[in-house]
Amino acid sequence: MQPRPSFAKAFRGKRVLITGGLGFIGSNLTRALVALGAKVTILDSLIPEYGGNRRNLRGLGRQVAINLADVRDRHSLPEFLRGQHFLFNLAGQTSHMDSMTDPETDLEINCRAQLTLLEACRRHNPKLRVVFASTRQIYGRPDYLPVDEKHPLRPVDVNGINKLAGEEYHLLYSEVHGIQSTVLRLTNTIGPRMRVKDARQTFVGIWIRQILEGRPVEVWGGDQRRDFTYVDDAVEAFLLAATHPRAVGGVFNLGGVGRLSLRELARTLVAVAGHGSYRVKPFPADRKKIDIGDYYSDCRLIGRKLGWKPRTGIREALAQTVAYYRSELPHYL
Amino acid sequence: MQPRPSFAKAFRGKRVLITGGLGFIGSNLTRALVALGAKVTILDSLIPEYGGNRRNLRGLGRQVAINLADVRDRHSLPEFLRGQHFLFNLAGQTSHMDSMTDPETDLEINCRAQLTLLEACRRHNPKLRVVFASTRQIYGRPDYLPVDEKHPLRPVDVNGINKLAGEEYHLLYSEVHGIQSTVLRLTNTIGPRMRVKDARQTFVGIWIRQILEGRPVEVWGGDQRRDFTYVDDAVEAFLLAATHPRAVGGVFNLGGVGRLSLRELARTLVAVAGHGSYRVKPFPADRKKIDIGDYYSDCRLIGRKLGWKPRTGIREALAQTVAYYRSELPHYL
Repeated sequence: MQPRPSFAKAFRGKRVLITGGLGFIGSNLTRALVALGAKVTILDSLIPEYGGNRRNLRGLGRQVAINLADVRDRHSLPEFLRGQHFLFNLAGQTSHMDSMTDPETDLEINCRAQLTLLEACRRHNPKLRVVFASTRQIYGRPDYLPVDEKHPLRPVDVNGINKLAGEEYHLLYSEVHGIQSTVLRLTNTIGPRMRVKDARQTFVGIWIRQILEGRPVEVWGGDQRRDFTYVDDAVEAFLLAATHPRAVGGVFNLGGVGRLSLRELARTLVAVAGHGSYRVKPFPADRKKIDIGDYYSDCRLIGRKLGWKPRTGIREALAQTVAYYRSELPHYL
Repeated sequence: MQPRPSFAKAFRGKRVLITGGLGFIGSNLTRALVALGAKVTILDSLIPEYGGNRRNLRGLGRQVAINLADVRDRHSLPEFLRGQHFLFNLAGQTSHMDSMTDPETDLEINCRAQLTLLEACRRHNPKLRVVFASTRQIYGRPDYLPVDEKHPLRPVDVNGINKLAGEEYHLLYSEVHGIQSTVLRLTNTIGPRMRVKDARQTFVGIWIRQILEGRPVEVWGGDQRRDFTYVDDAVEAFLLAATHPRAVGGVFNLGGVGRLSLRELARTLVAVAGHGSYRVKPFPADRKKIDIGDYYSDCRLIGRKLGWKPRTGIREALAQTVAYYRSELPHYL
């Protein structure tokens, strides 16, 4: 990403707290903010099944204050929040399947901890500017495509329900308590530093691993269409959301790149990697129940209001990602 | 309520668990079910700020098993659930203001405990038939009137957000785990055994108290329109929701009676009581922020699908309620 000049002005010397800052998007955001001159503190639990990985901040050394802690631990939150100018709130449980087998952990992280965090903001730092990472999962199975922000919210798994509540808390605290917040509804974000060990963050992660390990990419179903966001574009959206006056209290879809069937995506990935193969398998029954079918987003609202649009096409996004993991894969297994 | 013959067939000898069964609607439902020959167990916490009151089951003696316990206490839930045929899930924190001053308690009861309860159903009694008491509060400020079930869900307070999550868990567990559930979205329910000590359950409660204590009824704002459900009609809706095959997985509005401004309602109450007065006061600032403006529901869906419609008009509902509290008021203060 080429940082916009206004970002440097907005973030230079500013104190920024990033929950989930060792994770995929969090770490890329951290890198961008450090480059912009911000003083970044990271709060990350490094739960092994989640996205956090120390490797993600390789080379940053002492330019970032890393604090291992869990957002569920309410007692240290006031200390983290005091004096911060920005909060990028990205810590979350992202696996749809895990939310069905262990729904209460998902609730504790995606729902209860969010409310506690916002209460702590209200009491200890109500002037903080907040951006919350939400998800397209809250829409459930689309009534129409592309899905815009007015689409009914009908989540089809526990993760979607809890993320919806987390989002609503942010909007409520913005509206009622003046804690200026913006919500970004992410779809499949891909790029360097994503989790590739398994499909817990996005299925594309495990595909990258499979192709680099010389195994066929396993495509479940295959006909579902999806769209994507390259992580640098997502980072830009977070920075815009935190600084644009028209973003306050707003909810914006990201996405818009690709709109491919999973089969087409697998074909593209094989082509980009220059090797490998894929095979289509029937959907496992437990996943079928919570699958949302086709999804791709209408992200014109954030374009109109904040001037964001995705700059990176799907082939380039996949190429950058594959290139990163060609050397880095061992650090992500 | 004149019980329908089919209810007797559905409930005679059946084991029924009612959370919040000492509360307003819960106790009226308990009375109806006992009359129908059901074996009712009540789980109620009797938290002083909530709706539970032992007086509500006066005269039932040992026909009901009353177990004082909190739905937040997960450990006893399996024992409560085993062997039950029906679960009427009415326990909840209902005060919008309390949800703003103590949001985490609201979350624990209306959100976390609901998920825990459904998980316990899944593990220990997945064949149970469930009816969940939801609220019009999840709609927020109406885009149009009357509000039907397709209206966007945009709660304006913590209570609305948590009740929305609670509702979604029920629908999800019905859809994915086969725990047959129905959701009723209640609006202002009024009648004997409602909380009249304060406005925590509904503002009509404190109005009844004020008029019977010879004080002017305090109307905040006054122009907001609301609709109502008499408690016997609500009870009939719960019984229908639990037994009608077309109710499974469904979400239905109640309400439809009155559609009066608060000022008109106060005038009607004074007329029905035959004495008293009211005065209109400006909205307190903290309540203004979470007020939803006009609201009245479109409840034709439950009419079409389950054959329910409100039988009791607003004057009769108020008259029955006032008559009850003329003798009972001291037991509700």
